[in-house]
Amino acid sequence: MTTKTTIVLFSGEYDKAMAAYIIANGAAAYDHEVTIFHTFWGLNALRKKENIKVNKGLLEKLFGKMMPKGADRMGLSKMNFLGFGPKMIKHVIKQHQAMTLPQLIAMAQEQKVNLVACTMTMDLLGLKEEELLKGIDYAGVAAYLAEAEDGHVNLFI
Amino acid sequence: MTTKTTIVLFSGEYDKAMAAYIIANGAAAYDHEVTIFHTFWGLNALRKKENIKVNKGLLEKLFGKMMPKGADRMGLSKMNFLGFGPKMIKHVIKQHQAMTLPQLIAMAQEQKVNLVACTMTMDLLGLKEEELLKGIDYAGVAAYLAEAEDGHVNLFI
Amino acid sequence: MTTKTTIVLFSGEYDKAMAAYIIANGAAAYDHEVTIFHTFWGLNALRKKENIKVNKGLLEKLFGKMMPKGADRMGLSKMNFLGFGPKMIKHVIKQHQAMTLPQLIAMAQEQKVNLVACTMTMDLLGLKEEELLKGIDYAGVAAYLAEAEDGHVNLFI
Repeated sequence: MTTKTTIVLFSGEYDKAMAAYIIANGAAAYDHEVTIFHTFWGLNALRKKENIKVNKGLLEKLFGKMMPKGADRMGLSKMNFLGFGPKMIKHVIKQHQAMTLPQLIAMAQEQKVNLVACTMTMDLLGLKEEELLKGIDYAGVAAYLAEAEDGHVNLFI
Repeated sequence: MTTKTTIVLFSGEYDKAMAAYIIANGAAAYDHEVTIFHTFWGLNALRKKENIKVNKGLLEKLFGKMMPKGADRMGLSKMNFLGFGPKMIKHVIKQHQAMTLPQLIAMAQEQKVNLVACTMTMDLLGLKEEELLKGIDYAGVAAYLAEAEDGHVNLFI
Repeated sequence: MTTKTTIVLFSGEYDKAMAAYIIANGAAAYDHEVTIFHTFWGLNALRKKENIKVNKGLLEKLFGKMMPKGADRMGLSKMNFLGFGPKMIKHVIKQHQAMTLPQLIAMAQEQKVNLVACTMTMDLLGLKEEELLKGIDYAGVAAYLAEAEDGHVNLFI
């Protein structure tokens, strides 16, 4: 039987998303069936970095402007220092030939990790499918629960 | 056999508590036996909004004053903007006819989700039973572990 | 069969680490096999409080200086108030004859909780084995996954 790993990625920080994707990629390498369910601020990890023109209301536009456009622009949960912290982390990642968050996400897609965007919170934050990376699935909490119920490792990050 | 879902709600933010209660309500709708174990700042989601007169020491009074009185007064984990963020979120929740946190909590109680307050952290933060909603259970870490041990989905939020 | 509990301690705050160690000690008391896998800021809970002389690059030194040296110096995730919050918490812990974080860590070691430091993030943050408490294991994400796969309670804190 395949081992299932499910991760709810709620947090919108570079370091927390890194942890989620490192665990996901590790589990996929061990042939787990892995799902990352992106909700709330975790959705930002899936945003394209380009400005995508979509029809939005005022609040939706505001949220869209204030939230980071994609993994590379996310801040740190600690020692962010107005954006200097992420630069430090990216520097040491290169020094140690480790993988950046965008690289970890690309690797997860190659390894067929199931990347899911929570449609309910997309609605709340005004995010549209055109703004997210290709190859993403769209689902609600019911789909998450169906996966998690058989999950061997279930985490909320 | 009933599927068990247990959530430790440690965080005291509106958005994180929303995520916890959305998962809990979803799981209850699928006939899971669901427990939310509120500890540390998560206890604030269970506070009554009224000022309740109880006998407290100085530090306990201070904690009581500084912590939000109930779900509706909690801030956001991101983009709080001195309280403007929660207003934005509540506005879009209404726009999308989604449920607010107090509504999600009421629904959980209707669905017989087991809402537990951690007695040890109540002591530390000086919270008394009179200050919390009706229909709450009171227990310690041992009770949580007994539930979680058979849990199919265990999350820490 | 032994029940397994695994906790990823990612967060570097006093209150979150307290929650992790209270759950871990509780589980160990019920004869669970317990592992706490410390990664990112969670590694700081394992630092010695003394200044340890080790050979480091500039960024590593900077990280080392900015991160708290050991459990006793960690801040709170809420109401930190420039360090006054932790003092308040430690005060009420004493009042209620509860255990401080350093005491909880010592108890976990006595109870043979498996304390693991994530070698990948040690590299990123420039932490060396000499700087961490004695009796720690060193491993990567693969070792964590091997434990978590059989875990009955898996949490990310």
